[in-house]
Amino acid sequence: MVGGGQLARMTHEAGIPLGIRFKLLSDTPQDSAAQVVSEVVIGDYRDLDTLRAFARGCDVLTFDHEHVPTEHLRALEADGIPIRPGPEALVHAQDKGVMRAKLDAIGAPCPRHRIVSDPADVERFAAEGDGFPVILKTVRGGYDGKGVWLVRSSKEAAEPFLAGVPVLAEEKVSFVRELAANVVRSPHGQAVAYPVVESIQVDGVCDTVIAPAPCLSPRLSAEAQQLALRVAEELDVIGHLAVELFEIRDADGEPAVLVNELAMRPHNSGHWTQDGAITSQFANHVRAVLDLPLGDPRPRATWTVMANVLGGDYPDMYAAYLHCMARDPQLKIHMYGKDVKPGRKVGHVNTYGDDLADVRERAAHAAGYLRGTITE
Amino acid sequence: MVGGGQLARMTHEAGIPLGIRFKLLSDTPQDSAAQVVSEVVIGDYRDLDTLRAFARGCDVLTFDHEHVPTEHLRALEADGIPIRPGPEALVHAQDKGVMRAKLDAIGAPCPRHRIVSDPADVERFAAEGDGFPVILKTVRGGYDGKGVWLVRSSKEAAEPFLAGVPVLAEEKVSFVRELAANVVRSPHGQAVAYPVVESIQVDGVCDTVIAPAPCLSPRLSAEAQQLALRVAEELDVIGHLAVELFEIRDADGEPAVLVNELAMRPHNSGHWTQDGAITSQFANHVRAVLDLPLGDPRPRATWTVMANVLGGDYPDMYAAYLHCMARDPQLKIHMYGKDVKPGRKVGHVNTYGDDLADVRERAAHAAGYLRGTITE
Repeated sequence: MVGGGQLARMTHEAGIPLGIRFKLLSDTPQDSAAQVVSEVVIGDYRDLDTLRAFARGCDVLTFDHEHVPTEHLRALEADGIPIRPGPEALVHAQDKGVMRAKLDAIGAPCPRHRIVSDPADVERFAAEGDGFPVILKTVRGGYDGKGVWLVRSSKEAAEPFLAGVPVLAEEKVSFVRELAANVVRSPHGQAVAYPVVESIQVDGVCDTVIAPAPCLSPRLSAEAQQLALRVAEELDVIGHLAVELFEIRDADGEPAVLVNELAMRPHNSGHWTQDGAITSQFANHVRAVLDLPLGDPRPRATWTVMANVLGGDYPDMYAAYLHCMARDPQLKIHMYGKDVKPGRKVGHVNTYGDDLADVRERAAHAAGYLRGTITE
Repeated sequence: MVGGGQLARMTHEAGIPLGIRFKLLSDTPQDSAAQVVSEVVIGDYRDLDTLRAFARGCDVLTFDHEHVPTEHLRALEADGIPIRPGPEALVHAQDKGVMRAKLDAIGAPCPRHRIVSDPADVERFAAEGDGFPVILKTVRGGYDGKGVWLVRSSKEAAEPFLAGVPVLAEEKVSFVRELAANVVRSPHGQAVAYPVVESIQVDGVCDTVIAPAPCLSPRLSAEAQQLALRVAEELDVIGHLAVELFEIRDADGEPAVLVNELAMRPHNSGHWTQDGAITSQFANHVRAVLDLPLGDPRPRATWTVMANVLGGDYPDMYAAYLHCMARDPQLKIHMYGKDVKPGRKVGHVNTYGDDLADVRERAAHAAGYLRGTITE
């Protein structure tokens, strides 16, 4: 796996019981995954020679993030290394312009969008629809709110163009809530769909995920799952695909979804599966990229809630950690081994049970206590 | 952790989400745990200098097996290294003579037993009770049926004395079935008890574990849990304690238990907890030895069944592995990364659900198919 972040850490964890030999390409020995994996190569994923040397002896290459240059992936594939997901799939998660064009081509519902050339073009884009505000995104390089701007006039639209990367304009969707439809697909073409979840963002960062999404109509749930399965098939995705969705009301006032983002790797919206599903997203990602039969994606509990643990003002979480474990012996804590910095994702917690209010309270309490925003 | 077997492998797996830095002392780099742990020291656990060098910088030392010499543990403890479980506790799991003496002293029910000096003394031991057969055990060094003899006459009783290790004689208990009461205890004195399980042995090796033990009377279940908690406290055990029990009928025909063996580490009879309990034995062992608050030991499913996967005649399990995953997407496979040798434990499977017959069939099928004894 290329990339030493928490997704690689948790993928290794899921691969241990499957008997998988896991080799990691990591930026530094201190990276989240590098702390727990036996076979670690330290190197730069942007360097083709490093990637080539790393890939030697691997049965398959997969990714913790989407930042490996597409041309390097094509070169590795030409060398005969199975890349999963492959470069022709992964480019849709790397380049938002390519993604939107493909989703349009397969008829997947998207926010109104087009590539814009300068602030004056942003003005025209706004005028073509309901006006400002407009969302601008650099087509490459953004995540967790980075590389995304909400602009209220063409005067505010200069910054996104400074990087010299094409800029995608999108209508600001008036959504009811955010959902995610997560699926896993193998080279055989076998695919599984997890229950559709609700994802609650705070300041552009995922804060809480509720599985399954409460009060979601069975029709829309099935539509969202089928949409994600269709995207996986049409884009030839191998491994875990997260389809981030906006739930909206259509012209008739009926619930509908629009595709917000795609991620082709284990995803924050699937962390609940570690403790809430029969097979976790990490285990199924490993099974998919190795073309093993996939595991059952169904939930094990009525409700599972994931809350991200962000760093707070106190670098030492130990006392809070003890408190949370003692307060809730059912709490499932997942720490990433990262130094605590304010706002940095350093872990997450999962809770599950039959009473959604209780399950949410327990997750929120633990995440808030670990961050230091709740002191009781 | 000292010892690179599958228990260390699965303890590391359980420590990853807890954010634990795991350091391993392993015999070889090929050992089960050494394949998946980042920080591995290769060395001989029987050598005090090796142990001392390994222990430097560890917050606490714990064990994958019970073979570290007691005097080395005392020396490390004198150096100021926290040893959990400590040598004064661990000796009861290392020396069956010491164990029986202590269990007698605290009034824990045991099979009739005493140390015997030679075959003639075995004859006397038999005559003191119901005669032959008699079980002979070397007080140190035995496991999985090794170091244990069933003798039907004093003529058969020579071999156990050849090693020059004291020999313990025990009556052959006419038991209904074997149970295990597993508990975890922390330095704080906090303790949790898992549901009592039934353990089914084949050829002296654990084959299947059913959690909870079917048709176990609530009274005997509570008695067994309380007995295990009392043993943990009286022996000052820190970490996971497995109390292997015989279920018998007492003189009045009422169900009762006798203590068969003790193990002070994660134990085969607790592997079901990985998929069947809120907190696994491995996670709770880590939490206990680090004096973290313990996790909830309650079951997540009505029934969970663990079946050991033994090596068969075919060294390559890959095709069988694919078959088992495809046949049962709910199956939880735990492989140890070991070379397949006939009769060697190379993994286990867990299944769970509401229908015990179905859950047992699925576990037995997968274990048998992986071994090659079922080909369908």
